Amino acid sequence: MSGQGASERVTIYDVAAAAGVSTATASKALNDTGRMSAETRDRIRRTAQALGFRPNALARSLTSKRSFTVGLLTDDTYGRFTLPVMAGISEGLIDHGVSVFLCTVEDNPELAKVHVDAMLDKQVDGIIATGKRIDRPLPVELSHLSVPVVYALTAGPADAVTLVPDDGQGARLAVEHLIAQGRKRIVHVTGPGSFKVVHERTRAYAEALEAAGLPVREDGVMRGAWAERWGHEAVAALWERADRPDGIFCGNDQIARGVVDALRERNVDVPRDVSVVGFDNWEIVAEQTRPPLTTIDMNLKELGRQAGHALLRLVNGEAVEKGLWKLPCALVVRGS
Amino acid sequence: MSGQGASERVTIYDVAAAAGVSTATASKALNDTGRMSAETRDRIRRTAQALGFRPNALARSLTSKRSFTVGLLTDDTYGRFTLPVMAGISEGLIDHGVSVFLCTVEDNPELAKVHVDAMLDKQVDGIIATGKRIDRPLPVELSHLSVPVVYALTAGPADAVTLVPDDGQGARLAVEHLIAQGRKRIVHVTGPGSFKVVHERTRAYAEALEAAGLPVREDGVMRGAWAERWGHEAVAALWERADRPDGIFCGNDQIARGVVDALRERNVDVPRDVSVVGFDNWEIVAEQTRPPLTTIDMNLKELGRQAGHALLRLVNGEAVEKGLWKLPCALVVRGS
Repeated sequence: MSGQGASERVTIYDVAAAAGVSTATASKALNDTGRMSAETRDRIRRTAQALGFRPNALARSLTSKRSFTVGLLTDDTYGRFTLPVMAGISEGLIDHGVSVFLCTVEDNPELAKVHVDAMLDKQVDGIIATGKRIDRPLPVELSHLSVPVVYALTAGPADAVTLVPDDGQGARLAVEHLIAQGRKRIVHVTGPGSFKVVHERTRAYAEALEAAGLPVREDGVMRGAWAERWGHEAVAALWERADRPDGIFCGNDQIARGVVDALRERNVDVPRDVSVVGFDNWEIVAEQTRPPLTTIDMNLKELGRQAGHALLRLVNGEAVEKGLWKLPCALVVRGS
Repeated sequence: MSGQGASERVTIYDVAAAAGVSTATASKALNDTGRMSAETRDRIRRTAQALGFRPNALARSLTSKRSFTVGLLTDDTYGRFTLPVMAGISEGLIDHGVSVFLCTVEDNPELAKVHVDAMLDKQVDGIIATGKRIDRPLPVELSHLSVPVVYALTAGPADAVTLVPDDGQGARLAVEHLIAQGRKRIVHVTGPGSFKVVHERTRAYAEALEAAGLPVREDGVMRGAWAERWGHEAVAALWERADRPDGIFCGNDQIARGVVDALRERNVDVPRDVSVVGFDNWEIVAEQTRPPLTTIDMNLKELGRQAGHALLRLVNGEAVEKGLWKLPCALVVRGS
């Protein structure tokens, strides 16, 4: 679809070449960003006009029948969270013929800058920043780019659109499910306190117990690593106690997997004696656990879809509500 | 081939650090682009010369004021194989300021075509096609594009450069390791026969047994799903037999995880009574298995590095040997 159009279209490269500046500079001039003299900016604009360059991203997309392209930046080099978000963006914008280009930026700010520049140089229509945790920004400044930016599952500035799962609501679903199973002594085995989600889920856990008239115990929350091993250790510690739990809400599926294995090895029947709920719905773990894990799904695909739509509206010049969008999680009931 | 050179070579980062400027500035100075004082440009160039920095082959693409950009196409929507390959490409081309843009193509040829067109439209310098298995091509024709294409971990045409792990050599390493542990009755529990790698690894398994003078039994190879559950089922079937194995080579780490768990639940000690070797070195599975899994690593990062270098040479108009490049796997010894 873009084959023929490409050769006729006046691109930012043509403008840059004709004006004798870099594409980055040409782009900045036409988008009224960056630093340069008013004279240079004017000259580049006149060149663009003379060549018939159309600066509006969407107009450009429509008139040239080019596909809309999203640059997706992530620091999640393992892809666990990012690939579902990416799939959601693609699905959500499929009618627009969108292509999503993923670029991973590890912890090196300079290198991250190189990648962002490459995206701008390649004229992506917008950027979605995503990552592996909601309380850390990517190692690169994205506030003043020439294209719109949406944040999803990573920390964004206050005046941006930032989409995150509603961790508190997800945790509430988990605890309410355990209560509905008749569980009275529910503990929460979770990850390190350095994660914001750990605090949000812990607060929701306590509130859900209170709302049901169940006691909230100081030692009901146990923090450790996001790993199976911690699930084993937590069960070992819990089974030393006089008052053993009959419900365990785990901070992720890997911890839950360790908890379920450790209970089985103690001949504690799951779910008859103890009910277990995980978090993440990481299917490769959840489905192979014996019994398969009941868990909370963060709906990352839907989060990606909505991030893509928000970006499309921004590219399109439409109004989009700024701030933090908390999207609901869902309970997935399996065997535990 | 490129392993040692990488550590000795002076990179753009070294130049930037020595000159006290950002890598972007160093790159611009050396490529005669961007804005800076003639003095700064000269200083950076002298620093580069003093350090022995060789402005390399990619100069052509850099002087055209574009950064080198690789489009990475994959049908591995889960990212298990693709993200290590992607990391390898990035690392291997880091000195060239390369950016890798990943685009997933699922099983829809029309949509895949849209994405390839988008990559060409964005003027990527070359494309690497990758996937989740070596015996299936991506659902899109890439033979006659305007940019070079390299295939890695997916099927490519005969006249292209295609990089794959040497599955036979990897399987041989696994079986030889079991033999070196004194194991005599070694079985192979693997995936479905519809996968080419299953046949390659099975052949190598039989050859390694023969080479060691061990009998090759008809029922020594058991095929099932690539899942933990199959590991449990295989052990259940094996422990029905009169002649139980003392070594089990598994087709992937998930099967091996199931095998190790099933053995423990039968009070069979791993590795005292039975040694187990997996395949993939999927760390999140291998490290959390009790005991941690000894397994075969396909060196996907190195495969990505070499794919990136091959592409770079093609972009650069240099000769590259066509055909199938089989890269060696490595044994990772842990506790099983």
